[in-house]
Amino acid sequence: MARINKYKFPKTTIERLSYYFRALDELSKRGIDTISSEALGVKLNVKSSQIRKDLSYFGDFGKRGMGYDVKYLTKELRYILGLDREWPVIVMGAGHFGIAIAQYTMFKKHGFNIVALFDVSEERVGKDVDGIKILHLNELEKFIGENNVEIAIIAVPPNAAQDVTNLLVDAGIKAILNFAPVSLKVEKDVRVLSVDLTTKLEALAYYMSYTRDKLWKVFS
Amino acid sequence: MARINKYKFPKTTIERLSYYFRALDELSKRGIDTISSEALGVKLNVKSSQIRKDLSYFGDFGKRGMGYDVKYLTKELRYILGLDREWPVIVMGAGHFGIAIAQYTMFKKHGFNIVALFDVSEERVGKDVDGIKILHLNELEKFIGENNVEIAIIAVPPNAAQDVTNLLVDAGIKAILNFAPVSLKVEKDVRVLSVDLTTKLEALAYYMSYTRDKLWKVFS
Repeated sequence: MARINKYKFPKTTIERLSYYFRALDELSKRGIDTISSEALGVKLNVKSSQIRKDLSYFGDFGKRGMGYDVKYLTKELRYILGLDREWPVIVMGAGHFGIAIAQYTMFKKHGFNIVALFDVSEERVGKDVDGIKILHLNELEKFIGENNVEIAIIAVPPNAAQDVTNLLVDAGIKAILNFAPVSLKVEKDVRVLSVDLTTKLEALAYYMSYTRDKLWKVFS
Repeated sequence: MARINKYKFPKTTIERLSYYFRALDELSKRGIDTISSEALGVKLNVKSSQIRKDLSYFGDFGKRGMGYDVKYLTKELRYILGLDREWPVIVMGAGHFGIAIAQYTMFKKHGFNIVALFDVSEERVGKDVDGIKILHLNELEKFIGENNVEIAIIAVPPNAAQDVTNLLVDAGIKAILNFAPVSLKVEKDVRVLSVDLTTKLEALAYYMSYTRDKLWKVFS
């Protein structure tokens, strides 16, 4: 089984492992048994040395001159990434963004099962989004306890995000994916990942400002 | 003025520059004149050596023992990131996700001005989102030409994303931010950045699987 050999690896390693996992999962389903880090690198537009380095933090997966065993590595990455189980996830806020998230088909495909949305608006509470119920915030704690929910997605307006976070922490949530453009404070042992959609546009603006193929090729 | 000294730097450097820029912009507005890479690192939870390295690709901004001139570095980063101008941006798809994007206040704050949404639904076309008009797809080319739009955001269902991309490329769009969970093909010299919301949840699932503070501290 995969082990963590070292404690220091870049934050981006985990996101790259997700990409490797998907490519390998697809190869596995197509019946491909082995792949070299070079071939995987070409497929994913990542340097093969990067792939080898990322994987080396978690174990020794390649056989010299043989490439990776696709099925085995897929299974190991699924385990490393915690994708060998289903995660019930709740969405805070049933506005446009919350609904869009509830309808985002890729979450379910990757084991993240949106089980409820929460809101306080009378217009929204009681309705459902493709079969997923919109519940009132005062049902939060009970719902989290009864459904063993550990992950919540925040899709409320910025000025409500911290209050909602406090409620989530008090109700026992362990990890928060935050789409509100504010920095959240949590005191307890809760993981928070904030997604800033602006940085992606800024990256594009950068590329537009320096429309140099050479540079772009390094990035893409 | 900032110059690009080297062509090889990590993809993540640009996103980190965005973070540095915002922190510095805030410091600048608070009247703070200088900051060391160490102090900036503590503030942003990034290693000071990382900050120095990221900046070194673009020039020599620090004075030994003096720290960075906050105002000057802010100005340089604004220029490097192409944020010294306003970018008109269109949103393809006026469903829940498209509307949420049109309402995302941080874009405007960072110089990205959503100027129109495009859709084909009779129910949606002709309406507006907080003053931003929803236009029919057959007005796309004319609108892009007349308004010098170079950046488009794709917020249509996955099965429509490639067709919409082709229309955008034909209409002269230069950069695309894609939220549809599909890989887009573009033939011409058009930049595409795809945002996969699932990788963030997978990162959280990973943290949940390995709830070790030591590890988490490396990441956060």
